[in-house]
Amino acid sequence: MSHFAEKLEQSWSLNQSQLTLGLDPDPQRLPASLLNQPMAIYEFCRQMVDVCAPYVCAFKPQIAYFASAGAEEELAALCQYIKQHHPKHLLVLDSKRGDIGSTAEHYAREAFERYQADAVTLNPYMGFDSIAPFLEWRDKGVFILCRTSNPGGSDLQGLTLEDGTPLYLQVARMVAEQWNQHHQCGLVVGATYPNEMAHIRQAIGDEVPLLIPGIGAQGGNIAQTVQAGKNSNQRGMLINSARAILYASTGSDWLQAARLAAQETQQAINAALSSAQQS
Amino acid sequence: MSHFAEKLEQSWSLNQSQLTLGLDPDPQRLPASLLNQPMAIYEFCRQMVDVCAPYVCAFKPQIAYFASAGAEEELAALCQYIKQHHPKHLLVLDSKRGDIGSTAEHYAREAFERYQADAVTLNPYMGFDSIAPFLEWRDKGVFILCRTSNPGGSDLQGLTLEDGTPLYLQVARMVAEQWNQHHQCGLVVGATYPNEMAHIRQAIGDEVPLLIPGIGAQGGNIAQTVQAGKNSNQRGMLINSARAILYASTGSDWLQAARLAAQETQQAINAALSSAQQS
Repeated sequence: MSHFAEKLEQSWSLNQSQLTLGLDPDPQRLPASLLNQPMAIYEFCRQMVDVCAPYVCAFKPQIAYFASAGAEEELAALCQYIKQHHPKHLLVLDSKRGDIGSTAEHYAREAFERYQADAVTLNPYMGFDSIAPFLEWRDKGVFILCRTSNPGGSDLQGLTLEDGTPLYLQVARMVAEQWNQHHQCGLVVGATYPNEMAHIRQAIGDEVPLLIPGIGAQGGNIAQTVQAGKNSNQRGMLINSARAILYASTGSDWLQAARLAAQETQQAINAALSSAQQS
Repeated sequence: MSHFAEKLEQSWSLNQSQLTLGLDPDPQRLPASLLNQPMAIYEFCRQMVDVCAPYVCAFKPQIAYFASAGAEEELAALCQYIKQHHPKHLLVLDSKRGDIGSTAEHYAREAFERYQADAVTLNPYMGFDSIAPFLEWRDKGVFILCRTSNPGGSDLQGLTLEDGTPLYLQVARMVAEQWNQHHQCGLVVGATYPNEMAHIRQAIGDEVPLLIPGIGAQGGNIAQTVQAGKNSNQRGMLINSARAILYASTGSDWLQAARLAAQETQQAINAALSSAQQS
């Protein structure tokens, strides 16, 4: 078992959760009490992390929200805070990078050195040699885009190959059978396509974890997601929720509302796991 | 004609060049005279831009090199400098982003607002709705990954679809026929695959420009590239060279060596265009 796989197993068992908190801090949706404060983005995320920690296994900052605001230093401070105060949680940097080897080395340093992430999301379009520089960090993990939650995801991922396989399934097999030699790979599979998620889980077996966006604001169903995405150990998922928790309320009760939303989502996932096991 | 297409045509004709200078500043390869100076990355790129400007039509900073060094402010200053001092050149931000719509909006602001780029490179794996937020900036352009220059590019891009089309050609057609409604789209096609580049140019016609990495350090051949990539107006290409120019010498003659390498590459491209026209 790799260090990444071990840390992931621990984050599931120690937190009794397969929920991931997506940190997508939109400057236009911050609570009034934080507006115009220095480091407002950092403060929003830090407080969110602290109240949601009991209910989640992982934190997933989306780098685009920090980049558009020129807030890389706030992201670095947030990652540092998470590593220090929540060491039992996985830190996944959502950056969906993909570039040739010499450039990918720099993106790997961005994710693993500058931001200290345990894992990073990557795009498979440029092939294995664009992923390999990340895998050379043997204690780290990567989640590779497979079947994404957005409607346009079908444009390429839904194309049928000459042997009848859809492209997303070919990517899933390629990752599980060829790219995962050192147990560092996961897949990104959207909750909005539960049937396709079930095909993917069937094809890849138990080991490869799924990072699952698309519940909450995007409309994916928790019971269907759990049924389709879990492995035979009732594990194997990082089910992401961002906006439905972060912006559960924009009033002065924003932290309490977020905590409640995280708790309810964790319970819904665990209840779905119980019924899936019994059925 | 879109503002982007117009600016591109002007950059070709005013500079008599279809060469693009890739700005991949590796902190470990900077000339000794700049080491340990404040803003060394900015200074290296700025001086490089000034000496190469007469020979190129565009500048293409690779954001990964700035991100791994925590040098976003230097990148912003560099982009500002290029816009101000070289307004006849196209500024392409090489970031290969790709994400769902709400996140893509933030990446578009990163590229077009924060860095003032004229165009950005994007990854097509997540489909049209991941590209659309960039196209809403109607005066801007996008270059979409199609057939990349790295060996691993074949892993996905070379897969054959059920009608016999390779995936990269399907992407080229999708972009040219569906995504390019407002004349804002180009394609990234590596110089290391000239036969496939010729198929792509044949499929997409004259309008869509090709951003072509892979000459120089990666081994692509200029004559073959020009023959395969030009449109029927002898235009249509942004042929990128980075390392072969930036690191032509690491001695005290680094600027002169870079200038010479840029000039020779421009001349080689223009000579190849002349012979292609005559043949």
